Amino acid sequence: MANLTPNPSYSLSIRFQVPNQPGMLASVTQAVSDRGGNLGQIDVVEQTRHSSTREIVVDTASTEHAEAIIQAVKALPNVKVLNTYDRTFALHQGGKITVRSKAPLSRQSDLAMAYTPGVGRVCMAIAQDPDRVYELTIKRNTVAIVTDGSAVLGLGNLGAEAALPVMEGKAMLFKEFGGLDAFPICLATQDTDAIVEVVKNIAPVFGGVNLEDIAAPRCFEIEARLQQELNIPIFHDDQHGTAIVTLAALTNALKLVKKSLSDVQIVINGAGAAGVAIARLLKKAGATQIQMCDSQGILSSDRLDLNDQKREFAVEKGGKLADAMEGADVFLGVSAPGVVTPEMVKSMAKEPIVFAMANPVPEIQPELVSDDVAVIATGRSDYANQINNVLAFPGVFRGALDCRASGFTTSMYLGAALAIADLVSDSDLNREHIIPSVFDDRVAIAVAAAVQRAAREDGVARI
Amino acid sequence: MANLTPNPSYSLSIRFQVPNQPGMLASVTQAVSDRGGNLGQIDVVEQTRHSSTREIVVDTASTEHAEAIIQAVKALPNVKVLNTYDRTFALHQGGKITVRSKAPLSRQSDLAMAYTPGVGRVCMAIAQDPDRVYELTIKRNTVAIVTDGSAVLGLGNLGAEAALPVMEGKAMLFKEFGGLDAFPICLATQDTDAIVEVVKNIAPVFGGVNLEDIAAPRCFEIEARLQQELNIPIFHDDQHGTAIVTLAALTNALKLVKKSLSDVQIVINGAGAAGVAIARLLKKAGATQIQMCDSQGILSSDRLDLNDQKREFAVEKGGKLADAMEGADVFLGVSAPGVVTPEMVKSMAKEPIVFAMANPVPEIQPELVSDDVAVIATGRSDYANQINNVLAFPGVFRGALDCRASGFTTSMYLGAALAIADLVSDSDLNREHIIPSVFDDRVAIAVAAAVQRAAREDGVARI
Repeated sequence: MANLTPNPSYSLSIRFQVPNQPGMLASVTQAVSDRGGNLGQIDVVEQTRHSSTREIVVDTASTEHAEAIIQAVKALPNVKVLNTYDRTFALHQGGKITVRSKAPLSRQSDLAMAYTPGVGRVCMAIAQDPDRVYELTIKRNTVAIVTDGSAVLGLGNLGAEAALPVMEGKAMLFKEFGGLDAFPICLATQDTDAIVEVVKNIAPVFGGVNLEDIAAPRCFEIEARLQQELNIPIFHDDQHGTAIVTLAALTNALKLVKKSLSDVQIVINGAGAAGVAIARLLKKAGATQIQMCDSQGILSSDRLDLNDQKREFAVEKGGKLADAMEGADVFLGVSAPGVVTPEMVKSMAKEPIVFAMANPVPEIQPELVSDDVAVIATGRSDYANQINNVLAFPGVFRGALDCRASGFTTSMYLGAALAIADLVSDSDLNREHIIPSVFDDRVAIAVAAAVQRAAREDGVARI
Repeated sequence: MANLTPNPSYSLSIRFQVPNQPGMLASVTQAVSDRGGNLGQIDVVEQTRHSSTREIVVDTASTEHAEAIIQAVKALPNVKVLNTYDRTFALHQGGKITVRSKAPLSRQSDLAMAYTPGVGRVCMAIAQDPDRVYELTIKRNTVAIVTDGSAVLGLGNLGAEAALPVMEGKAMLFKEFGGLDAFPICLATQDTDAIVEVVKNIAPVFGGVNLEDIAAPRCFEIEARLQQELNIPIFHDDQHGTAIVTLAALTNALKLVKKSLSDVQIVINGAGAAGVAIARLLKKAGATQIQMCDSQGILSSDRLDLNDQKREFAVEKGGKLADAMEGADVFLGVSAPGVVTPEMVKSMAKEPIVFAMANPVPEIQPELVSDDVAVIATGRSDYANQINNVLAFPGVFRGALDCRASGFTTSMYLGAALAIADLVSDSDLNREHIIPSVFDDRVAIAVAAAVQRAAREDGVARI
């Protein structure tokens, strides 16, 4: 179903020529809407007395849908389709980031200062006082985005090369929202020891490391070992980014229903990186009643198939997801499309809160239960209350790098979550607005400030 | 001596205020030149009826020299020094490169195409057809600049952090002269196996690897193993960049003296990465008589202290550098400051060619022997005939990446050398101009074309 909603990820550009007569453009737009395409921008490329060339943007629901729309336009009398292209693929051609010089190199004297012989003086200065690497190089503003390609988005183990477009996109987000220079490191290994070794060995250039799309449970060990062995902050976004934003949204949702985090019954579905991190952070924030489920049901102490992280949250009584949800106040899904039914939501406590965060297709479509819930949130931008990690990681790293934190602490994450939550004022808070927009300029600044404050309190800030 | 020549690597900026009266600026510039400072740009910052604020650039010879000049200016009556700074260190503040997005991220639809959910389609396309990583990511234009910090410039084993300013500078050169996106990878290990492992594991993001400032003999094994195990081009610039530019310059110098490469007696002083690579490339180009020296003298078969690479060039008869130079036609120095005396040059054959390429202080100062040589070249920009690797590596990688070469071959290096040499036309060729300027726009294009041509002939081009 969700696949049939036109959206910008299947966006199409059609350039066509028509006789310069009234009604010609309308015939094209009509054909597009008849086929269910969603019209965006319409540009005039060229116009003469006789003919008119235009380019239109059409959001579609799938490549087949896009093809059907192209065929429909081609079939129109007097319409000559000149060119069509898939806008998403066009955007990715040749990659999405570039490395630029901050200073010109147009004269011998530029070379003599930026490169030999002048650069030798800068090298010697760092060799004599290693801390000056933070002053005289890119390190203080640079983040490695490290993946092994084992859990790319919700798509699975696609490998290093196929993960690269995501990491480039992440680097764009780091720049746009945090002003940070981030560079993708996609690893040709999925071995825990090898990953730890590589990251340790490339660390000198980086002020921090963002682990990304690394499968559980390997991700837990990699993060822990790197945090122990390196003196720069290590952050696994799929864990902590998700946990921070979830806690922020939940804090505001609970305000709306006037329930307290320490009292509510919480069900987390999905016991991978995100689920475990959410559960851990919620406990630190005061939650006391958490039931976690994986694809086999509730994590219970009688189950023999649990890894260390899952065992951490095992409860006495087992059961299915539906059993866990009965009477629960909060459902947090970081699992799979469509695994929650309207009946399961109806079985929850009064004024239930449902975060169906599976991407791109949520655990339950919001429209199916909108009358049965107090608040519903998803990971999608086309519904209200988008739980998006981009609210957290740019500010989290901005704050950590600016105070040269040696690592992350739970207080830094809690601070970030509350900073995000606080940006929604009481007067603005309502069931369709529990969390700020990703385009809210205040977010990264507020998060960075909160992270710095917590880092100083915890003694991990080094400047 | 060389240290006492003012140069842009010790460039100073002085901002000062003087009464707006005739002769005030002159008193400052006089003080600077009296102390041996070399005046550059003079800017007016602010001018009122009463006072005038200016900023002047002064090249100095050392930090002590710079300090003496500042003190001299401060001592002048009516001159108020407002601010002074070291321009080289200022240029390096916060590093010299930055990562930028190629596309804006200002709307939800931008996010949906560049990041989730749209990016998932691009990931799937690459997972299905791995070759598309070259089409849909940064890989095709991206070079890793890898160092272990063990042989930083001529400064020695400074380690990864202190090497970073050089690697950033190199990335600037890759961009400025080759249009390539290069990123520094400075390794926290100097172990051969570990370096090979790291580079193999980070290779998915990169279209090529430039090894830099890695000590011999480790560098030879690392390059050979990476070239064998990876299907992207691996280039150790200290070896092949130097060898290519040396061969280019030597080809033109030999034209001038009407000698043939196959006939001349060549002495190479320095048997590290550069010396070995020069010797190998010259042999491929047709040289037959090469004597190599290291700090112990001529590499001869009776010596027991030679590594594999040195043994490759061992000759029967041993001796000192001075013995080797007697009667030689060509001296190529990639060794240490001042190791060659005027007497040694005078003992060479008629119309000798001397390349004194030690940096920043050459094996012999050109002014000491300018009447005794047919041609002299150095690595410095302040003498004629600068042998600078930047003539080679940007075009070499541009060519290799554009034809998606699986590796480098000797023909590609030879092609690059001849392309550089050919840019000096017969009418322009003279003893002060055997090689093009690094700012000659034609260089990288010609080198890239020659490299591509050779790659196709050798069957290593993949498109």
